[in-house]
Amino acid sequence: MIHASFSGRLVMLGFGSIGQGVLPLILRHIDMPRDRITIVTAEPRGREIAAEYGIRFVQQPVTRENYKDVLVPELRRGDFLLNLSVDVSSVALIALCQEIGALYLDTCIEPWAGGYTDPSLTPSQRSNYALRESARALRDGVKGRPTAVLTHGANPGLVSHLVKEALLNLARDLELDVVVPTDREGWAALAERLGVKVIHIAERDTQVADRPKARGEFVNTWSIDGFVGEGCQPAELGWGTHEKALPPDGNRHEFGCDAAIWLARPGASTRVRSWTPLEGPFHGFLITHNEAISLADYYTVRDAAGAVRYRPTAHYAYHPCDDAVLSVHEIAGKNWEMQPQKRLMMEEITSGIDELGVLLMGHEKGAYWYGSRLSIEQARALAPHNNATSLQVTAAVLAGLVWAIENPRAGIVEADEIDHARCMEIMRPYLGEVVGEYSDWTPLQDREQLFPEELDRQDPWQFKNFRVV
Amino acid sequence: MIHASFSGRLVMLGFGSIGQGVLPLILRHIDMPRDRITIVTAEPRGREIAAEYGIRFVQQPVTRENYKDVLVPELRRGDFLLNLSVDVSSVALIALCQEIGALYLDTCIEPWAGGYTDPSLTPSQRSNYALRESARALRDGVKGRPTAVLTHGANPGLVSHLVKEALLNLARDLELDVVVPTDREGWAALAERLGVKVIHIAERDTQVADRPKARGEFVNTWSIDGFVGEGCQPAELGWGTHEKALPPDGNRHEFGCDAAIWLARPGASTRVRSWTPLEGPFHGFLITHNEAISLADYYTVRDAAGAVRYRPTAHYAYHPCDDAVLSVHEIAGKNWEMQPQKRLMMEEITSGIDELGVLLMGHEKGAYWYGSRLSIEQARALAPHNNATSLQVTAAVLAGLVWAIENPRAGIVEADEIDHARCMEIMRPYLGEVVGEYSDWTPLQDREQLFPEELDRQDPWQFKNFRVV
Ligand SMILES: NC(=O)c1ccc[n+]([C@@H]2O[C@H](COP(=O)([O-])OP(=O)(O)OC[C@H]3O[C@@H](n4cnc5c(N)ncnc54)[C@H](O)[C@@H]3O)[C@@H](O)[C@H]2O)c1
Ligand SMILES: NC(=O)c1ccc[n+]([C@@H]2O[C@H](COP(=O)([O-])OP(=O)(O)OC[C@H]3O[C@@H](n4cnc5c(N)ncnc54)[C@H](O)[C@@H]3O)[C@@H](O)[C@H]2O)c1
Repeated sequence: MIHASFSGRLVMLGFGSIGQGVLPLILRHIDMPRDRITIVTAEPRGREIAAEYGIRFVQQPVTRENYKDVLVPELRRGDFLLNLSVDVSSVALIALCQEIGALYLDTCIEPWAGGYTDPSLTPSQRSNYALRESARALRDGVKGRPTAVLTHGANPGLVSHLVKEALLNLARDLELDVVVPTDREGWAALAERLGVKVIHIAERDTQVADRPKARGEFVNTWSIDGFVGEGCQPAELGWGTHEKALPPDGNRHEFGCDAAIWLARPGASTRVRSWTPLEGPFHGFLITHNEAISLADYYTVRDAAGAVRYRPTAHYAYHPCDDAVLSVHEIAGKNWEMQPQKRLMMEEITSGIDELGVLLMGHEKGAYWYGSRLSIEQARALAPHNNATSLQVTAAVLAGLVWAIENPRAGIVEADEIDHARCMEIMRPYLGEVVGEYSDWTPLQDREQLFPEELDRQDPWQFKNFRVV
Repeated sequence: MIHASFSGRLVMLGFGSIGQGVLPLILRHIDMPRDRITIVTAEPRGREIAAEYGIRFVQQPVTRENYKDVLVPELRRGDFLLNLSVDVSSVALIALCQEIGALYLDTCIEPWAGGYTDPSLTPSQRSNYALRESARALRDGVKGRPTAVLTHGANPGLVSHLVKEALLNLARDLELDVVVPTDREGWAALAERLGVKVIHIAERDTQVADRPKARGEFVNTWSIDGFVGEGCQPAELGWGTHEKALPPDGNRHEFGCDAAIWLARPGASTRVRSWTPLEGPFHGFLITHNEAISLADYYTVRDAAGAVRYRPTAHYAYHPCDDAVLSVHEIAGKNWEMQPQKRLMMEEITSGIDELGVLLMGHEKGAYWYGSRLSIEQARALAPHNNATSLQVTAAVLAGLVWAIENPRAGIVEADEIDHARCMEIMRPYLGEVVGEYSDWTPLQDREQLFPEELDRQDPWQFKNFRVV
């Protein structure tokens, strides 16, 4: 089904797992001539797939020095820059597109190469919080600026829409009299009314291959560079108003919206307890993500004096595929020195699902998980060149593209700020089973059976109870 | 080659990976009639292997209530009880053998079923320290008591002999004028003279299969019950005299030799930095083991007044096979509730080695690893019914058996107390490559690149530097 037609040119920057996976969806759902699409990417990777679809393929790494030279000839007013690369500054590209008048979408706010681990920067400066602030600083308040959709993949992206549907489901199941909010204040008021204290992005990827991870190899179901980059950033979380005390290694940023804190350690070494319906309780990595900050910021309620009255804690609790858990264990053992080999699992996957959703906790019904369960078999049946993980992302990229084409003058926006119903409608056919499940799980369940632990038994939803120490 | 002949009866209690693996070695190296061997075990597992060798197989779980009834009819003075079971109290069996006049050997000091995780016991009471004290309490000082060899597998076991060879190699390479010590005092004095501050049992098992670990399955290359049991005990380590401060969660026992401390957490959740020649730096689990305590105790030097002047820190730094790392991650996520399925990897292993040795640190040459590198291919070529992990254990069981047969009136002894040269001679053909390698690795290497850490930069060999937090 065609969702939109597009008469401009589309430049896809980067053609890795997400680029390759989204191309068939674009061709299937957006009516536009193939010869208007150009791929600009750093490596030969994916060249044969571009050729399969008859798409122009330019192998040209983009850098701080050459990005204007490379991109300006490809982009005019009304064209579209779809950034699915790593190592290219999203903020530089957004500024360029705003200047040119081109539309823009990315799935995460990337710094220039090395920015995630630049030792000359403070952890706060290397954070997603800082990256998000720098992107938002480009908003100039002028109405009708070209649309730039920030961080619209699965997470960040899809999960913001899932939070909205989950809030509405919760209101329905609690038989509250609620009308669908139409603005930020309305959504934040709903979250407060429902008493949501904590939101996890709770993900369990069970995809496996029959080829074991080799020593010295980082294996994952999506970008290895992307995962290692964000895994080495400080752990970050939106910091809720119910939290009694900052963690011992927790820090506030000294600038910006103040919705989030950072921990003085890599997210890939920070484990938290979480829960999904199929996996049950598990340990996930508290990897920093834009949505942890944007959700906490979006769902903030202030009193008349402007002081924060309500805000949920929000963060990622990521159980990547088993081979990635092993890869993280290995790289941690080498003090985050990257393995010599990378393998993005695709054809060799034999089974598994990506169970990705939002876990809303602390309300009257305890915990509510709402999300997508997509198996590798379903993903393969639904779209070529995807696995279960990438399809959840590429469906969201498609939805963001369509929304931007339909709303070309919306300025710089995050997932929380765009029409969740329209996006869900476009994504839903690619998400497998979209399920909601309640649970009486709390992070205090089955604790202290063998050893005493430092817990807050009064409030199960304190971050210290989730954290694995 | 026949190492010894034995005219008594041999009862093998338990016939899992170690029992099945050692049987062919016993038949190959100990001259005794097959009809004098009886296997007593809890399950049908291994019945066909017993049949293959024509060995009597009795399926009978042994319990606190029935152990005398089951074993007394099978054991007379001069017979041998080889305990390779789980869930049966080693101390009860040792006492029984001492009473009967039978020889005895085990590879770890087991409590009765549930003893490792009995919540009515304090962590100190559930420790290997307490189990070791209770076994040593059976020593009555009377000369000529029947030999009972405690904890003589790979580790504990083999590694005590490796420490002695490593100390001699180190003395040789430092061109010290040293005669091979003949008693505990001599060995301890040598370790002190060499300045060994820390001894790791540093192990990296790289065995993998082409069948991925399933969800809800604990996979390992040796006893799953054994590993989970010890992994849920408190982390324990021999506590050296160079250590400046007890860890925040560290505790001394209020009884016994005082050579070791325990941490108020399961060893399977406690990671430490270590190093092996093939793996390089890695994170291992600080799983409690008898040798951590026995080495610290054995290598203690006291001043004239009896006060401890020198003692090394000693502990395990275990990187089990990758599937076991995942299994530990999974069970930790379920608060140590055992997975419904267990799989002991054997035939399905496709490649890998067990790199098992001792890492002596803090001396003039920095770090010295000395140990066995045994591949799955080598193990299969050397002995049936073994993988690389089990063969390192079963070779040590064989050596201990032979030594006990040769020394039937030595009383209750640990690996540190028996003839390392004789044992090494018997084991060596089964250990693959036995290698020593020096390294300038310290746990401070490559630290604090991204985040400040709490380190002791003055003394790299402080436990706090090894610990992963
Ligand atoms: N929001 C989400 O849910 C989500 C999910 C997955 C990936 N992502 C993000 O999407 C991006 C792409 O992910 P992926 O899995 O496709 O990554 P990938 O590692 O598979 O591919 C990255 C692509 O970027 C290209 N590239 C690298 N350096 C470049 C440069 N200097 N100039 C131009 N191209 C360059 C590479 O050649 C490659 O084609 C990453 O930033 C990742 O973090 C977001
Ligand atoms: N020191 C070392 O290096 C080392 C290495 C490996 C194993 N081990 C120890 O050796 C022992 C055996 O290891 P494994 O890998 O063969 O274990 P396994 O789990 O493969 O087998 C255990 C055996 O014990 C039997 N058993 C269980 N309960 C019993 C009971 N009540 N009565 C009689 N038999 C019973 C089981 O039927 C099985 O045959 C374990 O205690 C383990 O910790 C020591």
